[in-house]
Amino acid sequence: MAQKPSIPKGTRDFNPEQVAKRNYIFNTIRGAFETFGFQPIETPSFENSETLMGKYGDEGDRLIFKILNSGDYLSKTDSEAYDAKDSQKLTSSISEKALRYDLTVPFARYVVQHQNEIEFPFKRYQIQPVWRADRPQKGRFREFYQCDADVVGSDSLWQEVEFIQLYDAVFTALKLEGVTIKINNRKILSGIAEVIGAHDKLIDFTVALDKLDKIGEEKVKEEMRSKGISEEGISKLQPLFTLTGSFETQIESLKSILSSSEEGTKGIEELAFINQAISELGLNTAALQLDVTLARGLNYYTGAIFEVAAPKSVQMGSIGGGGRYDDLTGIFGLKNVSGVGISFGLDRIYLVLEELNLFPETVTKNVEVLFINFGDKEALFSLKAIKALRINGINAELYPDSAKMKKQMNHANKRLIPYVVIVGEEEMMSNTFMLKTMSTGDQQKLTVDELISKLK
Amino acid sequence: MAQKPSIPKGTRDFNPEQVAKRNYIFNTIRGAFETFGFQPIETPSFENSETLMGKYGDEGDRLIFKILNSGDYLSKTDSEAYDAKDSQKLTSSISEKALRYDLTVPFARYVVQHQNEIEFPFKRYQIQPVWRADRPQKGRFREFYQCDADVVGSDSLWQEVEFIQLYDAVFTALKLEGVTIKINNRKILSGIAEVIGAHDKLIDFTVALDKLDKIGEEKVKEEMRSKGISEEGISKLQPLFTLTGSFETQIESLKSILSSSEEGTKGIEELAFINQAISELGLNTAALQLDVTLARGLNYYTGAIFEVAAPKSVQMGSIGGGGRYDDLTGIFGLKNVSGVGISFGLDRIYLVLEELNLFPETVTKNVEVLFINFGDKEALFSLKAIKALRINGINAELYPDSAKMKKQMNHANKRLIPYVVIVGEEEMMSNTFMLKTMSTGDQQKLTVDELISKLK
Repeated sequence: MAQKPSIPKGTRDFNPEQVAKRNYIFNTIRGAFETFGFQPIETPSFENSETLMGKYGDEGDRLIFKILNSGDYLSKTDSEAYDAKDSQKLTSSISEKALRYDLTVPFARYVVQHQNEIEFPFKRYQIQPVWRADRPQKGRFREFYQCDADVVGSDSLWQEVEFIQLYDAVFTALKLEGVTIKINNRKILSGIAEVIGAHDKLIDFTVALDKLDKIGEEKVKEEMRSKGISEEGISKLQPLFTLTGSFETQIESLKSILSSSEEGTKGIEELAFINQAISELGLNTAALQLDVTLARGLNYYTGAIFEVAAPKSVQMGSIGGGGRYDDLTGIFGLKNVSGVGISFGLDRIYLVLEELNLFPETVTKNVEVLFINFGDKEALFSLKAIKALRINGINAELYPDSAKMKKQMNHANKRLIPYVVIVGEEEMMSNTFMLKTMSTGDQQKLTVDELISKLK
Repeated sequence: MAQKPSIPKGTRDFNPEQVAKRNYIFNTIRGAFETFGFQPIETPSFENSETLMGKYGDEGDRLIFKILNSGDYLSKTDSEAYDAKDSQKLTSSISEKALRYDLTVPFARYVVQHQNEIEFPFKRYQIQPVWRADRPQKGRFREFYQCDADVVGSDSLWQEVEFIQLYDAVFTALKLEGVTIKINNRKILSGIAEVIGAHDKLIDFTVALDKLDKIGEEKVKEEMRSKGISEEGISKLQPLFTLTGSFETQIESLKSILSSSEEGTKGIEELAFINQAISELGLNTAALQLDVTLARGLNYYTGAIFEVAAPKSVQMGSIGGGGRYDDLTGIFGLKNVSGVGISFGLDRIYLVLEELNLFPETVTKNVEVLFINFGDKEALFSLKAIKALRINGINAELYPDSAKMKKQMNHANKRLIPYVVIVGEEEMMSNTFMLKTMSTGDQQKLTVDELISKLK
């Protein structure tokens, strides 16, 4: 009954080196989250289906993994759907639970469910996997981690300022220089739509504008025309296509374009406040950039919109994003709770660090020293020293079998263990340990205490 | 469309305090795993159904959560099963994936799938959630973490010795004194069955013996009789019921009981070797105890069997277990790979530490200092200091809104933040910060550098 083992498409096994590198990123992000005052929560991997369904649009609903009910799940089926073999209709009668699709909706559910225990403003972070039945492709998986930090219960713009600092702190700690934090504001997009007389076409308009980078000015205008935006409106947009210069210069241009829109003007004020604060506080390695074409999940965001671009030397989409949303918890019955949050794209950050060779060497170092096993007496003698090393936090191990010396040395080599200890009759007599440095072949006879201070 | 939010039964939300406490346990276990030379791997949350099904018995198959295929999953159903509305038969045609039920079978799958990349002996650890459609009850959940360490590719008994040390190291680090590590050996159980002429009734015999603690000698004998074990056999068992004294004394008694069984004698030798090594190496806080009634998943283990009992002052089942298995990877086509491993029961360890009040206070401390917000000028001034604090690893935050002083102080109190900083005109003029200790009400005027050294 031997089977050729495999894993489902779009999923991954992680070997020790990969886990170590992923944990390096997780720990860096987690550390920054905590210094910024965010606290961790965790939610279940699966939620009741009604918590998730209908929150991500039809496409999202389709991509949610549903869990089959246990036991005789067909006994309670909708008979009409069953007779018609209608998969979509049948689902709700044979599946009551579904795997988490993102961390945002479960967080909203958490806030509403635990609102009486939570002290607001609530700064939470959450680092957990999510699952999507997406077509797997390069860099897109069916199981992947999200790393989110959000604040709910305050509409202070200082949160936006701090999130920009937080992005900067994380990428600085990861030694990833040259990251660009793009910012926009939903109110500016609304203002522009208003000014060009296309308020009812806000989505069409922003979807087109969002493509400026990829398809260029002419194609964007073409798409806008095809969506029914007037020539006059498009001509009013002209300054947008040529917005250049510093954050401040762009703000000035936007002010004149949007002077007639109250909402647009409010959006500009918000951006100006954030930019002013960031200028005074300074960023370590990242740059803040105004990008009026940035739209990201517009339906959802009501104020600031963030997106983080990797350094230009790397071909990679966004490595983070976020924004302010004014009514996330409304879907679960708690109104008027403003929130703002950001997310880090672990898999892409991993690829960027790998490409730029930015993982510290120490990350993948596992065992510091392997004790060669020459037999039970030597093994026991060695384990006494190993015990002392471990108490001092040094990762140490004994080769389990008294195999040929060459085999044991090969094992140390293959596992990139930097030191081996050789213990024979002589060492046992003198209570010493022969430490061999694998890279140089150097040997040193040491006491346990010397061994500890050498390896610590 | 407001919904009353809830989560599926048997699952849990974890609030910041709970996450912090859980992470304290995880990190302690992880740290010990690494000092002992184990390396982390991770496997996907769901596996192909054929990887899991049939590996845990019929009951296990029933408890595995199945994931419904995406899209028009009814289009490829088995029509006979469909027409008969046979849930069990239909499952395989509408579900190809299932959630991980434990970490052992995915590990075996991993070893076989990646056998050419793995350097054996392979010491891996894995800390990930598993899911079981079990009836939820106190302390039993449908989603819970397992923390496993295993070595495959060596049949050296030094592994068993090291696993005992590892248990001791973890519980010592958790300051949980008085833990008992019980050990038995499958070969001893086989030997006893052989000696009493019930080799074909090994399972019945051990299932009965395993209950000695709970139901007592007479009831155990009754059960054995009912399973067809002879009176003569049961009388030969008599010394087992009264085994007492030190590990060594019990070993001596077993030697005489099992002298006619080659397998039993081998089991005794193994236990004696392990006990001798542990005596020489010493344990810090745990005690090693021979328990011939210990059987735990007998079908699976072939040598040592471990189980860890919480200190006697706490009413709690086992908080860990494990053993040696000689053919785990055989189910996936890789023969003759011996393995041995142990597991830690996170949820129960959590309950024990909670009951004995053993979580260090620092674990749940989150933010060290909250800066009171009196307005934008003060906020900006504060954020400059906060930036310096965070760079120095101090968790610090600004109250986001310039709310009433009392509200902000209350916020610090409710979140158990030990210090607040108050910045007004005077502090800004003199570039100082008023640090208030919440527990005493003491106030101190400090520079940024003094603030850092005070809080670090």
